Amino acid sequence: MMRLLCCSSLITAVLLAAVGIAQAKERARDLGVPFDGTPGPNNAITDVAGVEVGHTTLISGEGKLKVGEGPVRTGVTAVLPRGKTSTDAVFGAWFTLNGNGEMTGTTWLEDSGFLEGPVMITNTHSVGMVRDAVIAWRIQHAPPDANGYSWSLPVVAETADDDLNDMNGFHVKAEHGFHALDSAHGGPVEEGNVGGGTGMVCNEFKGGIGTSSRVLDTKYGGYTVGVLVQCNYGQRNQLRIAGVPVGNEIPDHLVYNDDVGSIIVVVATDAPLIPTQLKRVARRVALGLGRDGSFSGDGSGDIFIAFSTANPGAAGTKGVHDLKMLANEQLNPIFLATVQATEEAVINAMVAAETMSGANGLTVYALPHDRLREVLKKYNRLAK
Amino acid sequence: MMRLLCCSSLITAVLLAAVGIAQAKERARDLGVPFDGTPGPNNAITDVAGVEVGHTTLISGEGKLKVGEGPVRTGVTAVLPRGKTSTDAVFGAWFTLNGNGEMTGTTWLEDSGFLEGPVMITNTHSVGMVRDAVIAWRIQHAPPDANGYSWSLPVVAETADDDLNDMNGFHVKAEHGFHALDSAHGGPVEEGNVGGGTGMVCNEFKGGIGTSSRVLDTKYGGYTVGVLVQCNYGQRNQLRIAGVPVGNEIPDHLVYNDDVGSIIVVVATDAPLIPTQLKRVARRVALGLGRDGSFSGDGSGDIFIAFSTANPGAAGTKGVHDLKMLANEQLNPIFLATVQATEEAVINAMVAAETMSGANGLTVYALPHDRLREVLKKYNRLAK
Amino acid sequence: MMRLLCCSSLITAVLLAAVGIAQAKERARDLGVPFDGTPGPNNAITDVAGVEVGHTTLISGEGKLKVGEGPVRTGVTAVLPRGKTSTDAVFGAWFTLNGNGEMTGTTWLEDSGFLEGPVMITNTHSVGMVRDAVIAWRIQHAPPDANGYSWSLPVVAETADDDLNDMNGFHVKAEHGFHALDSAHGGPVEEGNVGGGTGMVCNEFKGGIGTSSRVLDTKYGGYTVGVLVQCNYGQRNQLRIAGVPVGNEIPDHLVYNDDVGSIIVVVATDAPLIPTQLKRVARRVALGLGRDGSFSGDGSGDIFIAFSTANPGAAGTKGVHDLKMLANEQLNPIFLATVQATEEAVINAMVAAETMSGANGLTVYALPHDRLREVLKKYNRLAK
Amino acid sequence: MMRLLCCSSLITAVLLAAVGIAQAKERARDLGVPFDGTPGPNNAITDVAGVEVGHTTLISGEGKLKVGEGPVRTGVTAVLPRGKTSTDAVFGAWFTLNGNGEMTGTTWLEDSGFLEGPVMITNTHSVGMVRDAVIAWRIQHAPPDANGYSWSLPVVAETADDDLNDMNGFHVKAEHGFHALDSAHGGPVEEGNVGGGTGMVCNEFKGGIGTSSRVLDTKYGGYTVGVLVQCNYGQRNQLRIAGVPVGNEIPDHLVYNDDVGSIIVVVATDAPLIPTQLKRVARRVALGLGRDGSFSGDGSGDIFIAFSTANPGAAGTKGVHDLKMLANEQLNPIFLATVQATEEAVINAMVAAETMSGANGLTVYALPHDRLREVLKKYNRLAK
Repeated sequence: MMRLLCCSSLITAVLLAAVGIAQAKERARDLGVPFDGTPGPNNAITDVAGVEVGHTTLISGEGKLKVGEGPVRTGVTAVLPRGKTSTDAVFGAWFTLNGNGEMTGTTWLEDSGFLEGPVMITNTHSVGMVRDAVIAWRIQHAPPDANGYSWSLPVVAETADDDLNDMNGFHVKAEHGFHALDSAHGGPVEEGNVGGGTGMVCNEFKGGIGTSSRVLDTKYGGYTVGVLVQCNYGQRNQLRIAGVPVGNEIPDHLVYNDDVGSIIVVVATDAPLIPTQLKRVARRVALGLGRDGSFSGDGSGDIFIAFSTANPGAAGTKGVHDLKMLANEQLNPIFLATVQATEEAVINAMVAAETMSGANGLTVYALPHDRLREVLKKYNRLAK
Repeated sequence: MMRLLCCSSLITAVLLAAVGIAQAKERARDLGVPFDGTPGPNNAITDVAGVEVGHTTLISGEGKLKVGEGPVRTGVTAVLPRGKTSTDAVFGAWFTLNGNGEMTGTTWLEDSGFLEGPVMITNTHSVGMVRDAVIAWRIQHAPPDANGYSWSLPVVAETADDDLNDMNGFHVKAEHGFHALDSAHGGPVEEGNVGGGTGMVCNEFKGGIGTSSRVLDTKYGGYTVGVLVQCNYGQRNQLRIAGVPVGNEIPDHLVYNDDVGSIIVVVATDAPLIPTQLKRVARRVALGLGRDGSFSGDGSGDIFIAFSTANPGAAGTKGVHDLKMLANEQLNPIFLATVQATEEAVINAMVAAETMSGANGLTVYALPHDRLREVLKKYNRLAK
Repeated sequence: MMRLLCCSSLITAVLLAAVGIAQAKERARDLGVPFDGTPGPNNAITDVAGVEVGHTTLISGEGKLKVGEGPVRTGVTAVLPRGKTSTDAVFGAWFTLNGNGEMTGTTWLEDSGFLEGPVMITNTHSVGMVRDAVIAWRIQHAPPDANGYSWSLPVVAETADDDLNDMNGFHVKAEHGFHALDSAHGGPVEEGNVGGGTGMVCNEFKGGIGTSSRVLDTKYGGYTVGVLVQCNYGQRNQLRIAGVPVGNEIPDHLVYNDDVGSIIVVVATDAPLIPTQLKRVARRVALGLGRDGSFSGDGSGDIFIAFSTANPGAAGTKGVHDLKMLANEQLNPIFLATVQATEEAVINAMVAAETMSGANGLTVYALPHDRLREVLKKYNRLAK
Repeated sequence: MMRLLCCSSLITAVLLAAVGIAQAKERARDLGVPFDGTPGPNNAITDVAGVEVGHTTLISGEGKLKVGEGPVRTGVTAVLPRGKTSTDAVFGAWFTLNGNGEMTGTTWLEDSGFLEGPVMITNTHSVGMVRDAVIAWRIQHAPPDANGYSWSLPVVAETADDDLNDMNGFHVKAEHGFHALDSAHGGPVEEGNVGGGTGMVCNEFKGGIGTSSRVLDTKYGGYTVGVLVQCNYGQRNQLRIAGVPVGNEIPDHLVYNDDVGSIIVVVATDAPLIPTQLKRVARRVALGLGRDGSFSGDGSGDIFIAFSTANPGAAGTKGVHDLKMLANEQLNPIFLATVQATEEAVINAMVAAETMSGANGLTVYALPHDRLREVLKKYNRLAK
């Protein structure tokens, strides 16, 4: 399973996303959307030192859906807290705003307080494939740790791309999980129709992967908070951008006229937070989505995970470990940064995503940049 | 303890809030704040049939705080799911967005799925007094039920009014709990500086009690969702009203320049929801607060409770009960109504509250109505 | 993936467990272990009407472990709440006593209150394979329901068999998941070295699958409670059987001298319980394990799921459903039955399991029946 | 409220329990009950350095219950993690096995990870009185901390003594809370009919306060785990002592023939555990109760709290704190010690409690020591 070097005939047209290339695309800020707070250099989750992101993007076929043949509009995204070469776990925690989704590995995350490997995001029907692939990748890449294989309970999340993608065709294979891991990198992060986000729909615009970050003032410790979303949630008429009722102002090309999707959110920080605190951070994601107008529909899998890259070595198996912990009373800037970066990452996902046609000829349209600017201007909120 | 008919000399100036009198005060909608959705006749939690609300408002003294003597700016608010005369429990559930607060009775609420009595809200240091008073009131008002006294684990929540009130003076007595219960009524609900909300501060404006409701379209069952808040949370510069950055536009008279407070939110509905579903409803409150700009600071006790007045008799102790349950797939309109009514109830609390001076001469200023209208107009969001 | 009709050369010796054949093996009661309460006709989870259990048992190879080649000592167990032909969900809930394990699908189980498909149990590194296989099986077996494919978030749990099994060889394939589902049946349930339990170790004796049931007195409604365990937990010196310190009395052939394993427990009942109540039932499993001496070690994935086969049709997507709910005050006999059936199912697993040799020649010995009887006799607890 | 120096005429017969006096009474071990593990010098929660326990015991009146007049059989127990003079919080966590009870302050405990003051235990209808009394005591005893009064969200738990006590008479007053706090001490802990346990019933024998401890081998760090219970739970026929079916063997003087009560359990340790780990410790209490035969009835408030006295200063409000954390992989001896000390503390409560007559002439009989020994001997489990 792990030695497959290439791909079945079904997916010869697969695009294995080029990686490590700086984006030229406009992002929400570039369009004049006013956001609060100070982003890091990449305005991405990778602004948290050590965090790497990789994508496998699978796009092939067109027209009428034939199960097992396509069209394929899917992929895998990997977020590695300490990069590809470390097996050192990070403190982590999670929160479910609405549970119509999957994030494997959370039972141990909850009880141990540790995220032991990467966070993977794919489509709903490929969670199992990617999960076992992470175990296989771990076995290939590192000797057993003192406890045996510590990545045996991988964290894999999903949103459903069955409107654009032949999700029942199970096109994601183990090597696509490996590639997402192997291609992970720091620096700018690809957004929009990439990785797990390839076939996603966000507020009934084309959605996908988005990211953002905030750097705290040095008087608050100068920490960085980064957020990455796989955005597949939302009902258009609820969409607010920077508080502006953009959804109502651009009511074209509705897909569902309901909130049927999901959103996975990954929060990273270098602030020294223990799991109790990270759970509180994960819960703040809801407030960022609230700003964007979400009401978290019954069909949503709105599941969030937060981790801290501080305290390397805390997961060692022997004796007593020395830790650092930020005082609870110092958490407010972290909380606010989480809310702000979440708010922005969702908008970035829509701004980056491009119009896509998929199964049965369904076309999901991108958020039109010019009209977004017009609406912001109408409400006196255009930043530039 | 229960036979005290009148009050200590300390609180001779106590205002026992007149009840059952329709409000003449302007509310947020009257000022032109644009909200989505259709409110019920009172735009209040009491639009859910059977729900009654009562307040005891304690205001006395001025000037320098002397513990035990005042100034007193506090009170008690009671929300009775089936009114004063029923001992029939309702299905209920709760959720904590940030836990720096208290809501007693939640352990049994969580495990039984039932809210067995009223929801009481007061100041932080009077939770115990009010809790035991609810038990005493129950003993006086009804014979033991089949299980003994079913209100032995009362639900009492709080926010802290120690900036305006002599909270360490313990001015709330058992009779003030009784009065809030005895004076509960349907119809319009007093807002602002009343009941438990008397001395509260919301987004660094004067806060307190606020309420709102939504009535669903008949195609969604025609259910009503009502929300009542005791609003004491928020950092001014984060405040958004209908998405407009009102907090940044009215930066006067800041109190903390931080998020140090709390908010208690009660959600009522007549939709037939079981506890699992009500927990999901309670969680949506976070999204309403998100719309208003909250980031839920470390010092916040942001605790929410939701109940359904459907299924009378479900709490009977014998045999098998017949229930009604709305399909999960029909919950979206309930969720959206919860978000919308929460969003509005917070604004109503600030609109209703009036400037108050309290301990040590601190004055907390009301949200200025005229300036709110100016700001909404500036951002092209003034509804009328 | 789904069309594989037969097996790789690696697993030609696979035993696809014969099904539907009544057990001749002695069970714990047959040996004279005194248990309280009245079991159903099969003393098995299948005593709850409609519940079916299927196993795929994979045993091949011997000697030194070579990853990918074996030895293979693993399998898959399927528990179908309403049998193979129903797509009707059941109310369900779960509880984690210790989280070092995986049970997928629980996020939606928790939030929806429904278990939408089977409960599958396998080894730790095959959870993903089995998970996706359940989706594929569902697609093959039934048309999409009103919501699309309702088994898209399958519940798959695990315990680790890496001491006896080449777990990193990923020997479980999709067809093994299918077979467990297709071969499910009512009536007597195979125990011991079968299905997901094939390579498991329980209290340092050979473990695996065990089951038990209780039938309540008609004055308590006459309901049935059934339990099935995949038992892989426990430190020998803590083992108590019917309160007797059997572990200390039979200290031979220790494997770990620690608690390094896990236990998955499935509780079924036909009592009309709603999810809030089922969560309480799931939590009682801990008390049954307590009776057997567990202290739930750090390495344990002690994860329990409970469901009720009452209320067929409750998961329909439209309008308002009629439900039945047993009064909370009537739950005690259900709780006690859960504790008792859990206590017995674990012992049944050990009594049924036979000595097994696996990877690298490790032999895990069965609980010796004769010595068990001797110990019970020593402590005056031999029932017959 | 706080200035009452003495007592109403109703409770002139109150016994303010003598403190600091070593027990002469026999404990379970003295009777030959075989327990595993090594207790500390006092076999009490106070073996954890710094932990102090105080009781107020209220016993007055006899005969027919007259609400407000008696008989009085109740009290207050205080557990202070760092003694009376420290305001330094400890890491803590809690768990509910069955929620038909109250433990205030847990919302903030859960979210902050800190237990900021004492753990108080009293009767169900006095929780409020004791809660506010803790705040008043704190105000009297120490200046505000950097955050204001940090004990504003006290932890107060309860079990119901209404069978023996005039619980609706609200006989516990603020000064009784003060006395429990002021009289707290290290060393031997009074057990049985004292403090909050005065009027309690355990497994239908007279119950009350019990305690036990374990000291780990130095190879496991030499840590101490101490447990204190207020035992009011249990159905006689389920009672097991050291695995022996004592409840069935001594079926005399049954009170309920059901499980209607509750148990509050406090676990203390000096092991350096963070809140995530302490939650796991709290959950292990269930396994100790399982050993004693509990099935945790619907009417039970089985609520457990665990704290660690390690990491003094961790609750400071400024900057980044240095912590120590025991590796998760080292937790097993802590878990086992928690199970063992819980198992023993419950038995100690019954062994210490003496036959009591209370309201309406009900007499609840003590566990007869001689018959306990006979039963242990019958089952070959008498240790000496």
